[in-house]
Amino acid sequence: MAKHQEYMQQALQQARLAWGVSKPNPAVGCVLVRDDMVVGQGHTQELGHAHAEVMALKQAGANAQGATAYVTLEPCSHYGRTPPCTKALIKAGVDMVVYGCEDPNPLVAGRGLQQLKEAGVTVVGPVLPAACAAINPGFMHAMANGKPYVFSKLASSLDGRIAMASGESQWITGAAARAQVHLMRAQSCAVITGIGSLLVDNPSMTCRQSELQMAGVSDKQWARIKQPLRVVLDSQLRAPINAKIFAQPGPVLVLTCIDDISLHQPYLDLGVEVAVVPGVEGKVDLAKAVQLLQQRGCQQLMLEAGAGLNASFLQAGLVDNLQVFMAPKLLGAGGKPLLAQDIDHLEDAWQLAFSQVQQVGEDLLLSMDLS
Amino acid sequence: MAKHQEYMQQALQQARLAWGVSKPNPAVGCVLVRDDMVVGQGHTQELGHAHAEVMALKQAGANAQGATAYVTLEPCSHYGRTPPCTKALIKAGVDMVVYGCEDPNPLVAGRGLQQLKEAGVTVVGPVLPAACAAINPGFMHAMANGKPYVFSKLASSLDGRIAMASGESQWITGAAARAQVHLMRAQSCAVITGIGSLLVDNPSMTCRQSELQMAGVSDKQWARIKQPLRVVLDSQLRAPINAKIFAQPGPVLVLTCIDDISLHQPYLDLGVEVAVVPGVEGKVDLAKAVQLLQQRGCQQLMLEAGAGLNASFLQAGLVDNLQVFMAPKLLGAGGKPLLAQDIDHLEDAWQLAFSQVQQVGEDLLLSMDLS
Repeated sequence: MAKHQEYMQQALQQARLAWGVSKPNPAVGCVLVRDDMVVGQGHTQELGHAHAEVMALKQAGANAQGATAYVTLEPCSHYGRTPPCTKALIKAGVDMVVYGCEDPNPLVAGRGLQQLKEAGVTVVGPVLPAACAAINPGFMHAMANGKPYVFSKLASSLDGRIAMASGESQWITGAAARAQVHLMRAQSCAVITGIGSLLVDNPSMTCRQSELQMAGVSDKQWARIKQPLRVVLDSQLRAPINAKIFAQPGPVLVLTCIDDISLHQPYLDLGVEVAVVPGVEGKVDLAKAVQLLQQRGCQQLMLEAGAGLNASFLQAGLVDNLQVFMAPKLLGAGGKPLLAQDIDHLEDAWQLAFSQVQQVGEDLLLSMDLS
Repeated sequence: MAKHQEYMQQALQQARLAWGVSKPNPAVGCVLVRDDMVVGQGHTQELGHAHAEVMALKQAGANAQGATAYVTLEPCSHYGRTPPCTKALIKAGVDMVVYGCEDPNPLVAGRGLQQLKEAGVTVVGPVLPAACAAINPGFMHAMANGKPYVFSKLASSLDGRIAMASGESQWITGAAARAQVHLMRAQSCAVITGIGSLLVDNPSMTCRQSELQMAGVSDKQWARIKQPLRVVLDSQLRAPINAKIFAQPGPVLVLTCIDDISLHQPYLDLGVEVAVVPGVEGKVDLAKAVQLLQQRGCQQLMLEAGAGLNASFLQAGLVDNLQVFMAPKLLGAGGKPLLAQDIDHLEDAWQLAFSQVQQVGEDLLLSMDLS
C-alpha cells in the first residue's frame, strides 16, 4: 500500500498541472509504472483534448504493456469529446489500474472500473481518495449534486473585519494568501462579484502570472491557464465603462435585471457580455444567476464579494463552503464586518464546520462547510 | 534519540499531572529508566514538597543506581524550599540525565547540568525542548523576562463576535473548548476579570471538576488542584456583594482605587481580599495591578474579560499571548466585537503571529503571540 500511495502522490502532482487548464474537465493525473519504474505520466489537457491516461500511455509507448496505471480519478468509460480512457488502457495492455477516487456522477460511478475488470485488468482502490477528490471540489460536487459548487473566499482579520471603516483593505492578508487566491481563481470556472465591491474596490479579478508563480505555477502552465469567467452582479447597470474589470484579458459577463438592450450596448461595445436575469426586490435573483452559470457549464463558482452579497448568498442557501484567509491582526470595532446580517439570537447564528485549516504564509486558511 | 524522545514523552505525561497542583512551581515530570525498564516516575508536588526527581528516586529506591533520568526541566541546583535535585540524583547513583529544556532563569540556566557533569553524570539534551517549555508558559516567561506571563482567553465566532447585541453569549464555543478553559484556569496563578464582565455575566471563574474531567483530569488530580486567585478589577467598588464570584471556593482579590477602608468592609466580611492600586483616569492602573500580582508570586495571569478591558490590556502593552477559541459560526454584524478599540488605518492594526493552531471539539484554538 505504501508504494501505491507514493505513486498516487505522483499522480496527484500531475493532476495539479491541469489546474486552470482542463476546466471544466476535472484535473486528473496518471502515472504508468512498470518494474517499479515510471514509464509514462500525464495530465488532462485542454477541453476536447487528451485525458491524463492517454497522455501517459502516449509517453510510455510499448512500455505500457504489463504496466500499472495510477489514476487520481476513475477512468471514464463513455464517449464524450474524446474516446473512453478505459478502452485505451485495455488496448495498451495495462495489467493493473490503481484509482484515487470514483467518478462522483451516480450514472457513471463504478462503470469504468467494471469495464476494466471485465477485460481482465486488476483494479485496486480507492487510494488517497480524500486528496484525490480535493483536487476537483467543483467537479466532484457538481457531479454528485447536479449543481455547481459555490465557495466564498473572504479575507478577514482575527476580529472578523474585512476592511477599515474607510474601506481600506489593502492588504489585510499577506502575499502568500493573495497568491493562493489567484490559484483559486484559476481553478474556478467563474468568479462572481457584486456592483458594490466593484464601485468601492475597482478590482480586476483575473488570475495573474506573478501571483500564480508565487503559488507554484510554472511559466509553462501559466501559458495554458484559462482565465475564469468574471461575473458582475449589477441589477441596475451601474458599472462604469472604465472599470478595471472590463479592461483585463478574459471573458466578463454582466448579469442585470435591466432588459433595455440599448443600455447593454456600451458594455457590448467593450466585448463584455450582458445577460438579463429576473430580479427579486430590485436585485439579481441569485439562484437564477447560479442556474444560468450552470447552464453555461460552470461547475466551480468562486464568490469574491463584500459583506452584503455574502449575506445574500448565504441566506439564499447557495453557499457550499467558505474559504476564509484569516490574518493574525486586530482591526478594531470600527472595521467593516465579515457578514452584513443582523442576527438577534445565538440559536439563529450560522453554524458551519471546519473542514480544513492550513497556514498560508503568516495567515491561516480556514475552510468551512455549510451543512 | 527515538528512545530518548519516547521516555521524554512519558516524563511530559508525568509533568501534566502537576498542572494546577505545583503552581507557582513549574510542573515537571521525571522518569527513571534502567535496562530499558521504567523503575520510577514522579511529578512536582505541592509548593514546599518534593520535586519530580525526588518522587521518582523514591519510587525507584536501589534501582536508581546506574539508571537514566528523563526530566522535562533542567534539575534545580540550589537550596530553595527543598534541597537541590542535582544532589539527590548524584547521591542515588544515576548514570545519565536526559533533560527537556534548560531552566530559563538566566542566573540558574546550565548550572544544574554543570553540577551533574562535574559529578561524572552523562548529560544529554535538550530533548523535545519546545514541548517541555510549553508545559509551563508562565514559569518560562516569568523566569526569562522577570515579569508575569499574561495571556488573554477569548471565545469568538468566525466573524469576531464575542456575544450577540443583547449580551447573549452562552455558548458560542462547544463543550470541549469550555473544558479547556477550566484547565487553563487550573494552570494559572490568577484569573483576572473586569467589573464590566462581572456585572453582565456574573461569572464564577473557578475551575470545576466536571469540566476538568472532560479535559482529562483525574479525580485524584482534581482533589489536589489549587483554585487560581480570582481577581476583579473594580476601580469604584461596584461589585454586588451577592456576586457569584464571591460565593465560590478559592481566594478572591478585588483591586480598587477606593482607599476608604469602610467601603472595603462588606467584601472583607465575605472573606474577600481588597487591595488598593493607583488609578489612571478613574480606572485601575493595569501595569500596577500586574506588578502587585507579581509581588504575590503570580507567574501566569489569565485574562478573561470583555472587549474593553482586553483593549486596555493590549494598549498598556501587558499582553504576551492571545488564546482565541474560535467557533465555526457567523453571528452577524450586530454582535459584540472582540476588541473595543477604534483604529483608523490598517498600518495601526494590532499585528500578531499565529504560534499554534489546534482543533478543540468543533472549535479551533488559535494561539497568537504579540511581538
